[in-house]
Amino acid sequence: MTTFQHPDFTAPRFASCPDATFVPAPADGVLPEGFFSTTNLPTYVRVNGAWRLPHQPRMDSAIVLGDDGDLWVKEMRRLKKGERVAVGMAEDGREGIYVNASAFLGEGGGEFKFMASEVSREKPVDYAHIAHLLVADRARGGYPIWVTGPALVHSRARADLVWFIEQGFVKALLAGNAVAVHDIEAAIFGTTLGMTAIGESSVGGHGLHMRAINRVRAAGSIAKAVADGTITNGIMHACVTHGVPFVLCGSIRDDGPLPGVYTDAIEAQDAMKAHTVKATMAVLVATALHAIATGNMLPAFITEPDGTLRELPTVCVDSAEFVVGKLKDRGTHQAFGVVTNAQDFMHILRLFVERELDAPTTARIAPAGR
Amino acid sequence: MTTFQHPDFTAPRFASCPDATFVPAPADGVLPEGFFSTTNLPTYVRVNGAWRLPHQPRMDSAIVLGDDGDLWVKEMRRLKKGERVAVGMAEDGREGIYVNASAFLGEGGGEFKFMASEVSREKPVDYAHIAHLLVADRARGGYPIWVTGPALVHSRARADLVWFIEQGFVKALLAGNAVAVHDIEAAIFGTTLGMTAIGESSVGGHGLHMRAINRVRAAGSIAKAVADGTITNGIMHACVTHGVPFVLCGSIRDDGPLPGVYTDAIEAQDAMKAHTVKATMAVLVATALHAIATGNMLPAFITEPDGTLRELPTVCVDSAEFVVGKLKDRGTHQAFGVVTNAQDFMHILRLFVERELDAPTTARIAPAGR
Amino acid sequence: MTTFQHPDFTAPRFASCPDATFVPAPADGVLPEGFFSTTNLPTYVRVNGAWRLPHQPRMDSAIVLGDDGDLWVKEMRRLKKGERVAVGMAEDGREGIYVNASAFLGEGGGEFKFMASEVSREKPVDYAHIAHLLVADRARGGYPIWVTGPALVHSRARADLVWFIEQGFVKALLAGNAVAVHDIEAAIFGTTLGMTAIGESSVGGHGLHMRAINRVRAAGSIAKAVADGTITNGIMHACVTHGVPFVLCGSIRDDGPLPGVYTDAIEAQDAMKAHTVKATMAVLVATALHAIATGNMLPAFITEPDGTLRELPTVCVDSAEFVVGKLKDRGTHQAFGVVTNAQDFMHILRLFVERELDAPTTARIAPAGR
Amino acid sequence: MTTFQHPDFTAPRFASCPDATFVPAPADGVLPEGFFSTTNLPTYVRVNGAWRLPHQPRMDSAIVLGDDGDLWVKEMRRLKKGERVAVGMAEDGREGIYVNASAFLGEGGGEFKFMASEVSREKPVDYAHIAHLLVADRARGGYPIWVTGPALVHSRARADLVWFIEQGFVKALLAGNAVAVHDIEAAIFGTTLGMTAIGESSVGGHGLHMRAINRVRAAGSIAKAVADGTITNGIMHACVTHGVPFVLCGSIRDDGPLPGVYTDAIEAQDAMKAHTVKATMAVLVATALHAIATGNMLPAFITEPDGTLRELPTVCVDSAEFVVGKLKDRGTHQAFGVVTNAQDFMHILRLFVERELDAPTTARIAPAGR
Repeated sequence: MTTFQHPDFTAPRFASCPDATFVPAPADGVLPEGFFSTTNLPTYVRVNGAWRLPHQPRMDSAIVLGDDGDLWVKEMRRLKKGERVAVGMAEDGREGIYVNASAFLGEGGGEFKFMASEVSREKPVDYAHIAHLLVADRARGGYPIWVTGPALVHSRARADLVWFIEQGFVKALLAGNAVAVHDIEAAIFGTTLGMTAIGESSVGGHGLHMRAINRVRAAGSIAKAVADGTITNGIMHACVTHGVPFVLCGSIRDDGPLPGVYTDAIEAQDAMKAHTVKATMAVLVATALHAIATGNMLPAFITEPDGTLRELPTVCVDSAEFVVGKLKDRGTHQAFGVVTNAQDFMHILRLFVERELDAPTTARIAPAGR
Repeated sequence: MTTFQHPDFTAPRFASCPDATFVPAPADGVLPEGFFSTTNLPTYVRVNGAWRLPHQPRMDSAIVLGDDGDLWVKEMRRLKKGERVAVGMAEDGREGIYVNASAFLGEGGGEFKFMASEVSREKPVDYAHIAHLLVADRARGGYPIWVTGPALVHSRARADLVWFIEQGFVKALLAGNAVAVHDIEAAIFGTTLGMTAIGESSVGGHGLHMRAINRVRAAGSIAKAVADGTITNGIMHACVTHGVPFVLCGSIRDDGPLPGVYTDAIEAQDAMKAHTVKATMAVLVATALHAIATGNMLPAFITEPDGTLRELPTVCVDSAEFVVGKLKDRGTHQAFGVVTNAQDFMHILRLFVERELDAPTTARIAPAGR
Repeated sequence: MTTFQHPDFTAPRFASCPDATFVPAPADGVLPEGFFSTTNLPTYVRVNGAWRLPHQPRMDSAIVLGDDGDLWVKEMRRLKKGERVAVGMAEDGREGIYVNASAFLGEGGGEFKFMASEVSREKPVDYAHIAHLLVADRARGGYPIWVTGPALVHSRARADLVWFIEQGFVKALLAGNAVAVHDIEAAIFGTTLGMTAIGESSVGGHGLHMRAINRVRAAGSIAKAVADGTITNGIMHACVTHGVPFVLCGSIRDDGPLPGVYTDAIEAQDAMKAHTVKATMAVLVATALHAIATGNMLPAFITEPDGTLRELPTVCVDSAEFVVGKLKDRGTHQAFGVVTNAQDFMHILRLFVERELDAPTTARIAPAGR
Repeated sequence: MTTFQHPDFTAPRFASCPDATFVPAPADGVLPEGFFSTTNLPTYVRVNGAWRLPHQPRMDSAIVLGDDGDLWVKEMRRLKKGERVAVGMAEDGREGIYVNASAFLGEGGGEFKFMASEVSREKPVDYAHIAHLLVADRARGGYPIWVTGPALVHSRARADLVWFIEQGFVKALLAGNAVAVHDIEAAIFGTTLGMTAIGESSVGGHGLHMRAINRVRAAGSIAKAVADGTITNGIMHACVTHGVPFVLCGSIRDDGPLPGVYTDAIEAQDAMKAHTVKATMAVLVATALHAIATGNMLPAFITEPDGTLRELPTVCVDSAEFVVGKLKDRGTHQAFGVVTNAQDFMHILRLFVERELDAPTTARIAPAGR
């Protein structure tokens, strides 16, 4: 478990740092010029001589000094006219804001090496380590969030995800309309987009997802369709029956949509945020859009009850190095990538979690920036 | 230009076909069980003994017999209780509905061949043909729509897309918030997500897209930001100054968003549909989400004023075969794929269009299903 | 198990077919103009009124009528001046040669479908079916060949391949110098190209593969390095200790090379062919070069002792759809693709084989062209 | 043009460094235990108190003190028993060998950034810079080598490569049998593996590459086939008629092979090395195998006649980030990647070179490690 020290603000380099400056927002949803734009790294703001961490850290947002005297990270669109917004471009403290980047981003260079890339299908995946993190997180009462794309359903990793839900390893599921549609088509008809469980097209299958959606719309909601026996198995069934909250975010690609899907992207972000602010671990499988959206909202770290900081374990699974690289290019540096398909990832991870449950490993110390 | 014949409905095989059956929708947004689920192929419905093509064809929708006596393809969510919906599972006419698949999907097999895959980075791209299609479409007064992802902007194909807009090759631009954000960041700061035009990160660059968004929000709209000189170049500038309509669809990944973005996915689909129903050609560049969304709404064919049918030329550009394959797997079979990056595609296509304008080629006859 | 019928050569369509024509090779390693170029499909040659299948079928070769009166498929480079070579371009029998393509290549088209692509990371992999094929092949005394690339070793699927070797599922291993180098580096130093088993670079690690090669060169051969205790575990160790033959083919990328590597490509092909002509199944993992090379040499079918033909099961595993598509584009149509990484494939396949051994499934009938 | 300083060996940190130690090779082709394994970075060896750079630097080799008193980098396999081989594991001088890594590999970390990945299809390609490098290199009388895979030929970038050959931008072409086979098939039949220039399969096309090979074998050599009019255009024709040397390296995948192909991998490496030791620039297009092989042989730097060091410009073009990443993972850190297809790269690069010839840009200073 990688932990990080708070900087020593008594050090000489911080001696001449001023308090941060706050400027009122000029209009609802508009920031003052020169606003400080946040990252997902630990960010200390000097107020009345004290360096403080704002609540609800995330990137691409503003730091607001609330009427409660606390510091909050807020999205631009949430700002009200007159709210006090931190300004400044420097991240080294000289404008009263200090981003502790070095602890997270590490140092590079120095030695000729082979196999130094961060993400490659050629690199071994340490499933035992991921399994250990999941089990330890559950033991601690953590809040692991799972974010999945439809390939997980097409490739029939449904049973494995159901198992993780049943075993208490999923505190929230964030996905799109399609994940639920394909899962429910599989529950009702045994196919996804008309494809059978062994990957063959079925005759007349192209309409089955529409028929599945239609039945849920007729029932009124996913929960009602579970209750009335329309949906008897699968991911959504497991979420409903085990009380695991899910957020289904709409997109322009959606058929239907299913009842309960957030068709408004802002409302969907808000619904996601209710979970990301509590997250203690994130598993992102086979989705670029939802993974990046979630990464945007997640801090790279967790503040423990005792005030210490540790890395927020973030696993990103995709068949292409590109998607993991894109997630990192959007700032989620802490993600470690697994280049494989969703089916295999889910199946092996479950296997290693079962092994970990049978015979727990000693916590391994992962190096910072791993 | 690939054209298709209407079936000969006087042939014996159609002699015993009945009229299609219509059943009222049981509730708003809910279809009757057994509804006919549409494809993007020419679909003939027998009403009062006559085989007719519905208006506004697209896949994953229902066929409605309107009060006007016409047939309309409508999305499930648009249905009102009591509307008359075609039912049936068969596509061969025996329930009064005939899908002319063979003309489009062709026949396979028969001979051992190398290089028979549909999409591969190893296959030559016939840019002269695409250029010819674009120029011919403009000459005919067509309605080409362009759908792009942010990589087009990051890779600095902005200038080339501006050229296509200026030259009248773009009748509508469908994209997401990010395309506009990065384009406007480039217009104001010269960077995209802080990356310069030669691909290097700039110091303090990670906040520049937020500053760009903030300025447009302060201005009130993209058009106002063009008018007041905040935005002086680029794609959005060209759209505004040349009167080319654009639809910016929101997603859960969005920062901001910019004013004018459709944050509701259903409203965004409706806004896109206003253009897809008129489309005579589609160019989809570097976006899986928007390409598939658009493909879902497009018919595979155009009905000419004289009633003949021809293929709707659909070009899908991506660096990975997978994205083109995924588009086809979602039913947009007519797409022909170009496996390359957005920068190179745009630059070479422009070059070939310039050549075509200088010296027009004779129309080439592309085989069906090419 | 997909089986194929011999054509009914008494049918009227074959009545007017002549005997095939044979022309002497004009020089060693040179074919007569108009030679018949083979495919990997069942090919019948009419000699003295009888339709016969040549021995050792493969693509890109010539058909020779030997002095023994038998027909042989021979590579161009093996031809001696004066050997009798079949000529003809037609594959439909009218020149005395008939290729039974339709049975293998199937028919396409006809219906609108989703998910119709042949290879996609989104499609489920039927591991139970592959496991069943492997177990059944072993039970029959078959000759499964395995072809692997270095990613299998880097990703630490060594232990799983060792298990397959130990359990008798590998009758020959075809690979390159690098597979053996990395496997032996792992055996001696625990690293591959200096990377540890959890994917981290080790200090000074970049020279370890050279040190491993050097020790084997000092020992004289891989077998001697096993015998003298230099190599105590891993893939090469298992091959040596279990008497499984291996062919290590040289390439221009090779370091060393290790003793025993075939540095001459022609000799390497000959060494591979000794195994491909006996193959009853092929598993190709994480290598484009060796997979295509092997595919080139393999027929798409096996002739059973009783004369019936069945498909030669060929599994191709890669992280990218492109590699599987390329293999098919080079004519190995029978390959079914698994889009995943080597580590996960090997681990899950082993798991399913263990299950199959515990509780055998009934043979499943796979459709032709699956 | 990135240049590098020699270390200041009068600095105190080098004061206590000893001379390097040399140990005789114990047998032909075998190194002494503890040998120093080279990298592609500037490596200084202390002999008689002087720090010297060995000749013919490359990675994965040994440093030999020759009878001529000079230092040479030699591949293990070339060593003769008794040759004096440098030993040592340290690269910091304390064993008399100093690798100047920091200048090349740079420093990482420090600031939160977007788009910080080294290789991505989303990043703009600075074609003007590559064009400038090529033109400047030709002006200086440099020795640019080009390394290509068959996709360049399939995608019909032949004409562009011919242009580069004709204009003097290619001093040596390194490729495999397949590049020449497909190029010659295109010259004779207009197809590659039976595929036409617009990407369609031709009837009976699968044998055409074998017919092309056969004609060249009948002619006796590629040069003779050019002389006798069998080959009238294309890449090989241009090499022959313009006196540009080419090395065709054999592989286990080869059909034929063509006369002149080096079927022995060791001889092929030696033939390549005759060019890599002279290289002043390297352009690697659409080949993993040959690119990595060449990267293995290339130093990361060039020693100018005046003794200064500068980076050896190395461009690696592939449709997948993975291949460029793999090249870097094999130690060719200096490569900058272009993620695109071969057709587009060649076409646009030619365009920019034509522009550069019309209006030369001022030399741009690229940062080290760019």
